[in-house]
Amino acid sequence: MNIKEVAKKAGVSVATVSRVLNHPESVAPDTKQRILDVIQELEYTPNWFARGLNFNKTDTIGLLIPNILNPSYMEIAKGVEDVSHQKNYNTLLCNGENAIEKERKYVDILVKRRVDGIVLVSSLLESDDIENITKQGIPVVLIGENRGDIKGIPIVRIDCEGASYKAVRHLIDIGYKDIAIIYGSTPEKENKRKVDGYRQALAEEGITEREEYLQEAPNTIEGGYIAGKRLNDLKHRPRAIFTSSDILAFGAIDAMKDHGVKVPEEVAFVGFDNIRMSNLIEPKLTTVEKPMHKMGVVGARLLFDIIDTKGEDITNREILLQSKLKIRKSCGHKERIGEIF
Amino acid sequence: MNIKEVAKKAGVSVATVSRVLNHPESVAPDTKQRILDVIQELEYTPNWFARGLNFNKTDTIGLLIPNILNPSYMEIAKGVEDVSHQKNYNTLLCNGENAIEKERKYVDILVKRRVDGIVLVSSLLESDDIENITKQGIPVVLIGENRGDIKGIPIVRIDCEGASYKAVRHLIDIGYKDIAIIYGSTPEKENKRKVDGYRQALAEEGITEREEYLQEAPNTIEGGYIAGKRLNDLKHRPRAIFTSSDILAFGAIDAMKDHGVKVPEEVAFVGFDNIRMSNLIEPKLTTVEKPMHKMGVVGARLLFDIIDTKGEDITNREILLQSKLKIRKSCGHKERIGEIF
Repeated sequence: MNIKEVAKKAGVSVATVSRVLNHPESVAPDTKQRILDVIQELEYTPNWFARGLNFNKTDTIGLLIPNILNPSYMEIAKGVEDVSHQKNYNTLLCNGENAIEKERKYVDILVKRRVDGIVLVSSLLESDDIENITKQGIPVVLIGENRGDIKGIPIVRIDCEGASYKAVRHLIDIGYKDIAIIYGSTPEKENKRKVDGYRQALAEEGITEREEYLQEAPNTIEGGYIAGKRLNDLKHRPRAIFTSSDILAFGAIDAMKDHGVKVPEEVAFVGFDNIRMSNLIEPKLTTVEKPMHKMGVVGARLLFDIIDTKGEDITNREILLQSKLKIRKSCGHKERIGEIF
Repeated sequence: MNIKEVAKKAGVSVATVSRVLNHPESVAPDTKQRILDVIQELEYTPNWFARGLNFNKTDTIGLLIPNILNPSYMEIAKGVEDVSHQKNYNTLLCNGENAIEKERKYVDILVKRRVDGIVLVSSLLESDDIENITKQGIPVVLIGENRGDIKGIPIVRIDCEGASYKAVRHLIDIGYKDIAIIYGSTPEKENKRKVDGYRQALAEEGITEREEYLQEAPNTIEGGYIAGKRLNDLKHRPRAIFTSSDILAFGAIDAMKDHGVKVPEEVAFVGFDNIRMSNLIEPKLTTVEKPMHKMGVVGARLLFDIIDTKGEDITNREILLQSKLKIRKSCGHKERIGEIF
């Protein structure tokens, strides 16, 4: 869609459309309205920043994350910004708040303001939404899987299923059998994979799954507290709990303490993420070290590769980063404190 | 500065300038260059979003914070976003990283993209910078004091000096005399006020100030760790430590634990902020409850007041919110756990 088509359809000159866009006060109201109607009808977006002046580039990227109060997303965001800053780009950070309408609105704004690229972190957006961005010539990179099935878009992620399998495997190896999982309701696909890893580890040992040991909760400290309390209230309280994020573990450990349950002596914990605070709570949290900052760095580099090369050959790339188990005190392991790769 | 002046100076018609802005490919290279030179010389910013289409408003505000890894700023940001979302506005979040050049670049971008208003959180920007924004018709609201002296711009803040005075007063009331302070190097003015409050409380009791008890550190967990270690290494270790932020306290408490010092039995702590995690560490942190989310909410409301009323009568407003001391375990207070207003 370009300005000529708008002019043709409105039956005016290109200069008049231009005037409406830049100096609406100089155009007669009737004419102006007619042109605005056509613009709306044709969904014409004048890409000012892409074409005006010398701005073929805006030196700005957009970064959409699900929740600004979740430290793990902020560490990813910091990784993206570090690269962006190095490249002398600016980063506009948008908080999708786990709501697809909000994500769509932000993407719309970023596209209209002609950012040079967009990084989506554990997004809810669907294939159509992403196609709407890329067909405007704005490259997209995913960090963490989207809720929907997105094909052909570069992605940086970790093996959630494998990492969770190893975490639960570790609990089994120490001697626990009654192992529960608290998993966040978001991000959906990643947490589904974590549940799969948990199940696989149990199945391998012939441990029968108990339905009440699978607890879904909002991915917040409060969500962890409530789920932890539910597990503590069970007739047969689990001996160990794996959580799909550190903040869920923080909440659940707090619930145990509030109810006089000793961690790890009575209930052991393994978290997921290794956010900065996981090393400061008591007991220090055994957790899967997700390379959050690195995911941000690698994702941003991938985006700049595409921007710089105009996308040759890179559209279908998937980068899988390694995570490892960081063993501290909360799992109740007696001897080995360290890392399992 | 408007397009007519650009056209006059370049010796071309307004339509030609318009074409350069919107369809540069349709203008002869020589003419285009001449016009671009004039545009640059006159510092003409075509305010597309302000005047084009029906966009008198862009329904977007900018929010500039000093550090996305600091949870206290994210809680303020969440408050701003909550109001913004309610008003059906979007928020573009920018991470200034405590660097004035970076803040200036972001402000420049937000202004060029014609946001409807800007919220600056504990910013480094100076009067001139802010005047550059407001004279373009974009209202600014401050949350927390800027480093420089900014007059005539609406601000939401707390009484840092009074709150710190009360926190140290509380430590004195429990019986401590050897009280140190760890204060962040940023935000500068706010932390200077916290040091003033600390000094006032000591002076009132005739407690002689020890230079080595005033420790400046980067406002991070790591900064707190290093400052905590320095205090622990002193010949005369303090009996209590007040920190200008919770994350500084987290780091310093961790340093004490690593060196076998019991908190609060051997060294007591009072923090500042009451971020979510301060209730989860061991021992739970006594801290000044800064109404972070509320500061964000009030700041955003103030901004929307100005946007909605076009700034009548509001330019000189200052809103002072109350903070209170939240007494938990880390200060070693034996009986009273609760709040002091």
